[in-house]
Amino acid sequence: MKKILIAGTIAFDEVTTPFGHSGKKLGGSATYLSFASSLFPNRTAVVSIVGNDFPDKYLEKFRRRHIDISGVEISQNHKTFYWKGLYYENMNKRDTLITEVNALAYFNPVIPEAYKDAELVILGNLHPGIQQEILNQLTEKPQLTILDTMNFWMDTAMESLLKVISRVDLLLVNEEEARQLTGKYTIVHAAKKILRMGPKYVIIKQGEYGSVLFTENDIFFAPAYPLEKVADPTGAGDTFAGGFAGHLSLYENFGFDEMKNALICASNLASFTVEDFGTDRLERIDIKDVEARINEFIKMTTYPLQIKLDI
Amino acid sequence: MKKILIAGTIAFDEVTTPFGHSGKKLGGSATYLSFASSLFPNRTAVVSIVGNDFPDKYLEKFRRRHIDISGVEISQNHKTFYWKGLYYENMNKRDTLITEVNALAYFNPVIPEAYKDAELVILGNLHPGIQQEILNQLTEKPQLTILDTMNFWMDTAMESLLKVISRVDLLLVNEEEARQLTGKYTIVHAAKKILRMGPKYVIIKQGEYGSVLFTENDIFFAPAYPLEKVADPTGAGDTFAGGFAGHLSLYENFGFDEMKNALICASNLASFTVEDFGTDRLERIDIKDVEARINEFIKMTTYPLQIKLDI
Repeated sequence: MKKILIAGTIAFDEVTTPFGHSGKKLGGSATYLSFASSLFPNRTAVVSIVGNDFPDKYLEKFRRRHIDISGVEISQNHKTFYWKGLYYENMNKRDTLITEVNALAYFNPVIPEAYKDAELVILGNLHPGIQQEILNQLTEKPQLTILDTMNFWMDTAMESLLKVISRVDLLLVNEEEARQLTGKYTIVHAAKKILRMGPKYVIIKQGEYGSVLFTENDIFFAPAYPLEKVADPTGAGDTFAGGFAGHLSLYENFGFDEMKNALICASNLASFTVEDFGTDRLERIDIKDVEARINEFIKMTTYPLQIKLDI
Repeated sequence: MKKILIAGTIAFDEVTTPFGHSGKKLGGSATYLSFASSLFPNRTAVVSIVGNDFPDKYLEKFRRRHIDISGVEISQNHKTFYWKGLYYENMNKRDTLITEVNALAYFNPVIPEAYKDAELVILGNLHPGIQQEILNQLTEKPQLTILDTMNFWMDTAMESLLKVISRVDLLLVNEEEARQLTGKYTIVHAAKKILRMGPKYVIIKQGEYGSVLFTENDIFFAPAYPLEKVADPTGAGDTFAGGFAGHLSLYENFGFDEMKNALICASNLASFTVEDFGTDRLERIDIKDVEARINEFIKMTTYPLQIKLDI
């Protein structure tokens, strides 16, 4: 089985959306990333930090999924990272109400020995300096390194961010981040510019509309699964990235066809997260649920390939 | 060859987008609808009204495309409908700066005798009372009636709009219109509610992201073709609808597979309109350009259907 190494936050999240209030819940990029990737047969490990207020019942959720948390430091002197956010009517926009960095300010990532040769590495949203530190500790070149980031790091640590971007295989950004990073309006222009920054692949996430994978010569779309009920988009992007890596971990090598399948799988898996608050829905599903949704998705996206244009 | 009857506006449009200013140009729903539908082998006719200031060189653009304009009234006492709009950074939002209704206020549609039994009827964006008047003049039940509308009619003539919706086969709306019309948040909920209002089909347009076709039992997505260069989205929705009907006119009967193909064709055709101001790009293309784009699109949207989820 392949090994997936995940670096990211484990946090308390609290959100209000047009559909309700979450209360203070388990969140953080590494949580969604690992809950998603561990749905597939692989070995997933997390490098992160939590505070002295972090309940063991939450750590137990990781252990129960056979996620290696030996790389999760428990800070003795600080509390767990806490984020409070507000989503507006159209849930593509959100405001941060409170960020308490807490223990995360003291995060010195240490990769467990057994994961320094992981085949897949996901650098979840963190300071780009920390993300580079993870790469520095690897002893083998992974088959694929995946980087997530956000506009905050573009505003505050662009130089360091560009450095880490140049060192990874795949960058995951949403449309606004792609525009901010490149100064280009269309996603096609932005993706081309990102591919010149180092990565071989870029995925531009379009929220409820889906996502697009770009390489130098190819483009591939995965629409999002259309949901009847939505509650909270928090964590959908991380679920997507974790599902993407999790699905890839099934394959020996990662060609463009495998990437396409992983994108579709990731997109469908991420749709579950949106259906309820926090990790609630993601925690209740298994691979059979994902499979059923993908089968629905296939029906909604395949078409007779002979499209005639003349009588 | 099938007959397509189009009712809508022929207008002067003037827009400013983040990419430039159009100047006063030929526009209007019936213009885009018929320029798009007439790319396919069929007989297209337009019912509309223009003013005494409308240049014959513009009418010539219709004639050159073999579009029957015997149903286009030339008002002796009024000027042509004029619309001036402003698009913001993210081109999904626009503001109307000026609307001069002019001759359109005196529009009494009269369908040319030869088109009262048209197989395909497109009711472009007009007052829903006028749209009903078109339906009243038909002598044969068309194979498919397509209705476009906008939020303005929901604000000012909802009762009449609901009436015409109940009489057509297919409603075309964008996401915001679908929400306003139904009070439902997700497009899946909104589409279900619209299907209970009468139409057998609803297409929800998502602009640069694509469009989704709903029936009682099926959903089908067509992502939009990803453009490197965008200039002006005006008319893209009408190009889409005209391309949809134009493509369907190639088939004897319209089953769900034919609808899927038409959706893909419509989506790719509409992308041309966005690449330049007004009808400039649409006027320069022929069916070979559409075919080439569809072939690109197929590469970007097809995937190995066997998606394994286990080793």
